Amino acid sequence: MSPEDAYQWLKQDSLETAHFTSLGRLLGWDQRTQIPPKGHPHRHAQFAMLAGWIHQRQTNPRLGEMLTTVEGSELVRDPLRAEAVNVREWRRDYDRATKIPQGLAVALAQAAAEGETAWEQTRPLSDWQTFRPFLSRIVALKRQEAEALGYEQEPYDALLDDYEPGETAAALAPLLGELRDALIGLLEAVQGSSRLPDRAILHRHFPKGDQERFARMAAAKIGYDLQAGRLDPTAHPFSTGIGPGDVRITTRYDEDCFSMAFFSVLHETGHALYDQGLPAEHWGAPRGQAVSLGIHESQSRMWENLVGRSLGFWKFFYPEAQKIFPALADVSLEAFHLAVNDVRPDLIRTEADEITYNLHILLRFELERALVKGELQVAELPDARDDKMRTFLGLTPPNHAQGLMQDVHWSAGHLGYFPTYTLGNLYAAQFFARAERDLGDLEAAFARGDFGALLGWLREKIHRQGNRYRPRELVKAVTGEDPNPDYLIRYLTNKFGKLYDLRLPGL
Amino acid sequence: MSPEDAYQWLKQDSLETAHFTSLGRLLGWDQRTQIPPKGHPHRHAQFAMLAGWIHQRQTNPRLGEMLTTVEGSELVRDPLRAEAVNVREWRRDYDRATKIPQGLAVALAQAAAEGETAWEQTRPLSDWQTFRPFLSRIVALKRQEAEALGYEQEPYDALLDDYEPGETAAALAPLLGELRDALIGLLEAVQGSSRLPDRAILHRHFPKGDQERFARMAAAKIGYDLQAGRLDPTAHPFSTGIGPGDVRITTRYDEDCFSMAFFSVLHETGHALYDQGLPAEHWGAPRGQAVSLGIHESQSRMWENLVGRSLGFWKFFYPEAQKIFPALADVSLEAFHLAVNDVRPDLIRTEADEITYNLHILLRFELERALVKGELQVAELPDARDDKMRTFLGLTPPNHAQGLMQDVHWSAGHLGYFPTYTLGNLYAAQFFARAERDLGDLEAAFARGDFGALLGWLREKIHRQGNRYRPRELVKAVTGEDPNPDYLIRYLTNKFGKLYDLRLPGL
Repeated sequence: MSPEDAYQWLKQDSLETAHFTSLGRLLGWDQRTQIPPKGHPHRHAQFAMLAGWIHQRQTNPRLGEMLTTVEGSELVRDPLRAEAVNVREWRRDYDRATKIPQGLAVALAQAAAEGETAWEQTRPLSDWQTFRPFLSRIVALKRQEAEALGYEQEPYDALLDDYEPGETAAALAPLLGELRDALIGLLEAVQGSSRLPDRAILHRHFPKGDQERFARMAAAKIGYDLQAGRLDPTAHPFSTGIGPGDVRITTRYDEDCFSMAFFSVLHETGHALYDQGLPAEHWGAPRGQAVSLGIHESQSRMWENLVGRSLGFWKFFYPEAQKIFPALADVSLEAFHLAVNDVRPDLIRTEADEITYNLHILLRFELERALVKGELQVAELPDARDDKMRTFLGLTPPNHAQGLMQDVHWSAGHLGYFPTYTLGNLYAAQFFARAERDLGDLEAAFARGDFGALLGWLREKIHRQGNRYRPRELVKAVTGEDPNPDYLIRYLTNKFGKLYDLRLPGL
Repeated sequence: MSPEDAYQWLKQDSLETAHFTSLGRLLGWDQRTQIPPKGHPHRHAQFAMLAGWIHQRQTNPRLGEMLTTVEGSELVRDPLRAEAVNVREWRRDYDRATKIPQGLAVALAQAAAEGETAWEQTRPLSDWQTFRPFLSRIVALKRQEAEALGYEQEPYDALLDDYEPGETAAALAPLLGELRDALIGLLEAVQGSSRLPDRAILHRHFPKGDQERFARMAAAKIGYDLQAGRLDPTAHPFSTGIGPGDVRITTRYDEDCFSMAFFSVLHETGHALYDQGLPAEHWGAPRGQAVSLGIHESQSRMWENLVGRSLGFWKFFYPEAQKIFPALADVSLEAFHLAVNDVRPDLIRTEADEITYNLHILLRFELERALVKGELQVAELPDARDDKMRTFLGLTPPNHAQGLMQDVHWSAGHLGYFPTYTLGNLYAAQFFARAERDLGDLEAAFARGDFGALLGWLREKIHRQGNRYRPRELVKAVTGEDPNPDYLIRYLTNKFGKLYDLRLPGL
């Protein structure tokens, strides 16, 4: 068979596998937003079946033969052309998949589906005892997976690589270390400030219907195409790209809190904008896919924070918010903006401010790294978590729902995922700084209701590139330098220095 | 390979195919209730992909070999045991599937998905010109399908057999003929009656939320397990069994009409009760499936009409309805009951009374039979339809939305489906008569709020039998005689004779 024919075979095969993945995304969306309670066992069986089929496809020896035929051919000479990008990623996926036995792949999928349902049912009751065996099973299976995949330094790297290709715990360490030191210093400075945000104004009564209307309007205004998406309520907000023209987001409402639903909508909208901006003509092949979770997260965190918590953003949206929510009638723009940038160690990661958020990630990273190494057992997690919460944030969770059980990730099998959030913050700040160099003052644009300039820039530089570059390469291609925590540190220092009237070196 | 091993292979294969079908049902439910507008093209591609996979599985030569191995073995000696039932149906499916070329199967699935979307978009505008090419394509493909499948008497039989195994147009003719003559006589008698239902009382204002609440309550009361189901709004009501524990229904609301949403909920609940009553331990194999559309329809029509339009039913539910709907405060039970049994030729099939409903079916049957024969072209349909509407019902549709385009069936590729509705009515009356012989006066039970006796009887006699019997065999096994239109004629004559104070022979 010629390299060209092998390539066409691989492309069709990839398209069919992508359709299976797309089916899985619809199953997942339905499971989290629509499914009747008694439908879960059947859904778990479906996930297991689907995972088995996908794994069978991914490990098809014929796929290996076709790859060998096309690799080294003229077709893949230019590494930035679609053909080379696709072959590079197909090889990576094939090598990863063939290392995992079929039985383990099925067991992982089933444990993840069951774990997520168990989490949904036990979290409201803070029922750690019932939840624990599900989590233990997942950790045991993920450790098996790491061993099967192999690693150079530590088993955690094998899992991390699934979410952030090429990244390792050791390579992360200096970035995270520099960031942690700077954040702890900044947090101390803010805590010493005499400016006290009035957080209570965000905890007045905000009817769910109004929250939904306002969030939908804002998501649409910044560029989310609701004709190609949906917004639904769920227990744990997420975004899912089912296919071109169908990228859905979800959120969670609390009528006594303005910020939870709104900022999670902005966050998920950021993810959805990326998926809606991927090159649809490449759908079904790696060239049409997102780069990594870290890059994905750079988009969600940018829209949530660098855009959504900026004064410019609220100069534009706050008059509208005051129209919709009578509870805000007596609150000034400045007081509101300070309140949505309240810096205060909090138990819940998703409600954390931009400074302490990364400390939440760091503690999860350390815990999951220890779990995967086998240095920590699931039974010891609550104590270990409490220790770290005290060390990093000075807090002790009063129950498991606000402690260990607040995140869905581990229950759904996502170990090695958390660091991508902090990578996302870091990348977001670096991209944003570059965008401002290219486009001029973005906050001024936001204040005019112009979000199209930034979105257009992201579309061109990142979204439409699909999976052309590896994460660190993309950062370099877009910004001209390697990933660098200084941008995030500078952004946070500058922003919170002004907001809290801090005297900091370099301001 | 031993027959036992071959049987196990077939069972696993059947289970996997059932999972594909289940995925297709979720895709369909989502397409009709949730999907964003721009998600349709991707969904059509998914349906085509899925249909291709299913067809590949169904025509796998290995399946044919396994069937040959197990057929004639000791395992399938007793025709009513699960093994024999499964092998019988696997053989039938394999023979049907291997006759249809893969390309045709994919084209049909895609045309059906596109046709349904086109129908949803063009129907509100009554836009026949835009819709027509979609329908033409479907009819052309269905005719190809009939030729590929083969038939003894006429191509229509090949399609009908898909919905009602073993049924033919020629065998239907005497049943439908006897029914038509009786119905036309009964309709004339009712139209001569001096009792005039006040239909206007059903067209007062009934808020959507209240309609939904009342319908949900009634569906639950008659036995629909909402923990294993959902009720959602849609353009064309349907029920879909995604799997054990997940059987969903939908309806369509009109705030100026009480009956449309409510009776379609009862109808779909009847379908859902059947699916919820199928033996879950056999899920994935024919023994766990429903018999046919005609038998399925006997359940939906029984709960919609024989139960839901009976005086006993409303003796129980009407006080509740009056509490929920202030619009009914001044309406007596008797006036309400007469109104929901208003007999009057109407343009819309799904809103037709129990007498004219079957005339709607007969005219559709004649049209689709002629389309499949090639005696009628799609371009000629509007005129042919108008002619028949005048002949059968004395009406002329003012537009296509209320004429040809009112039903989704043809646009979704379901030609040969309509007669199963009248078969369902016929079977329902025959089953119901037998249930009353076994259980005593059912209307008296309904008036006490007892629906469990009838449901229990249906569960045992029909639902839990799964696909053990062919349709006509099941009717004989349950009632002791062959399908017989006299039960439906007697039921309708008796009911409407009393309601309209008719002097009819035999009353």
